[in-house]
Amino acid sequence: MDPRRKVELFLERPMRPSRSGATHKGSLVIIGGHEDRTGEKLILREVADRLGDDGKIVVCTVASAEPDALWEQYESAFRALKVPHVFRLDIESRGDAATERSMRILEGATGVFLTGGDQLKITSQIGDTPVYSRMQEILQEGGVIAGTSAGASAMSATMLVANNGDASYRIKSSLLMAPGLGFAEDMLIDQHFAERGRMARLIGAVTQNPRVLGVGIDEDTAMIVERNRTFQVLGVGAVYVVDASKTTYSNIGDEDSDRTLSSFGLTVHMLSQGDRFDLDTRTPHPQPAESMERDEKRETGTR
Amino acid sequence: MDPRRKVELFLERPMRPSRSGATHKGSLVIIGGHEDRTGEKLILREVADRLGDDGKIVVCTVASAEPDALWEQYESAFRALKVPHVFRLDIESRGDAATERSMRILEGATGVFLTGGDQLKITSQIGDTPVYSRMQEILQEGGVIAGTSAGASAMSATMLVANNGDASYRIKSSLLMAPGLGFAEDMLIDQHFAERGRMARLIGAVTQNPRVLGVGIDEDTAMIVERNRTFQVLGVGAVYVVDASKTTYSNIGDEDSDRTLSSFGLTVHMLSQGDRFDLDTRTPHPQPAESMERDEKRETGTR
Repeated sequence: MDPRRKVELFLERPMRPSRSGATHKGSLVIIGGHEDRTGEKLILREVADRLGDDGKIVVCTVASAEPDALWEQYESAFRALKVPHVFRLDIESRGDAATERSMRILEGATGVFLTGGDQLKITSQIGDTPVYSRMQEILQEGGVIAGTSAGASAMSATMLVANNGDASYRIKSSLLMAPGLGFAEDMLIDQHFAERGRMARLIGAVTQNPRVLGVGIDEDTAMIVERNRTFQVLGVGAVYVVDASKTTYSNIGDEDSDRTLSSFGLTVHMLSQGDRFDLDTRTPHPQPAESMERDEKRETGTR
Repeated sequence: MDPRRKVELFLERPMRPSRSGATHKGSLVIIGGHEDRTGEKLILREVADRLGDDGKIVVCTVASAEPDALWEQYESAFRALKVPHVFRLDIESRGDAATERSMRILEGATGVFLTGGDQLKITSQIGDTPVYSRMQEILQEGGVIAGTSAGASAMSATMLVANNGDASYRIKSSLLMAPGLGFAEDMLIDQHFAERGRMARLIGAVTQNPRVLGVGIDEDTAMIVERNRTFQVLGVGAVYVVDASKTTYSNIGDEDSDRTLSSFGLTVHMLSQGDRFDLDTRTPHPQPAESMERDEKRETGTR
């Protein structure tokens, strides 16, 4: 094939390594933090609905510095949502992620929920452990992996690490990364997005390698990823997609990482509840308001 | 001319009403708030440099609820920067903007500086007054109009009005607008941008009419607009340009303004110090790091 045609083909349908066909049947519920746990519980309800008739959810509090309080909140919420089996997995050291006890807790689980806290605690303590393998298996079996705040960031293959000391617009602020759990392929996920003004650092992160799609999720808002092919938005805030594939210039290679970022020609989509996004073609699709009302009526049984 | 060619022509060079040729010789220094007033004073120095050899600046504190304290800060700063004539214009009521006293203060002024506060106080008290006409004249004469925070927002033809009570991602949050002073043609300017996470409401604002270019300015950062044709970035943060001209879908016309925004296909540029932007073609141009160092050396006389 001549070189020019190869360029044309890439433009028509970019080939990205992990978009090559290997998918699973499971779904990811990735939440921007501070989801409602006591009221309507729209997002947690979506998690519960995906667990199946004899569903079992395991709430993993590994990220948190106050795991007991968080566990109480999620236990109440999932019990109120009539999830048949609600279990807790706390991992205080890496050793805990390789015990028979932990694996027994995950036995038969159809969903795992990663709470907020510190994403590095999640990856350092469960990365490459039997617990991590079991989570992958749950996805393969068609189950749900959900995560909020730090639990959302950890879904990325490469994840941003919180950095509240520096201004988001510095190059170095978008360079603070670590390998994530990799459930959300080819995406780099940031949370508390509008609330903490994180657009600049997400732009920086995807400018470093435009192969990765940037996704910023507002609080009490989730993206539901199906088979790593599409996602849909649920919740009160927005989900922002930052696609750097058409950028023409950046100063990210600048020697001085204390410099402010430049990045020209980004494509940004702002999605709200019901909107869908095709991860293969990087194209957003709106859901008309009427069909949402229909969905709501169906859900509440008042059609 | 056949209709198809007209479409092609628009795509090649979009004709926007106020970009039709009428320009002035002056410059605008539009600042995202919290500019340094006691240290290096990079941005205020730029304002001072543009006032001319026998420069006269008038600091207009109309927006502020604490005008005396602000005036003291700016008076010290501009005197330290060796501006020959530093005057204050406080306007407590609309009547003050039509007095001979006010006009005398503005006599011979080569620059006006609008402080922060409430942008509605600026427009409601000086819009369509002799003071406003005099500011236009200063621009025509090649002078400087500078503004920070509320003073930056007020530069727009249509300006966003602060709305800290609502989440930025609601349609209604980007609908709170008022007619501005219109010095920055075809632009809608937002300030404290990364710091207050305002990307969503700026996206909403430009989605309403993509003819207007959205510009978000970080704190201690300025855009220097020359003849309303180009601007350049100065300061520690970034300037974000949001161009909605290629958007394909939005829900901005949705009846429920409490809904969360959707807007697909925005073009976003993130610019840092030295970068330029062509307002006619909506194209960013980088300034290479080497030439910036050269500029810095020239400024400090160490070349």
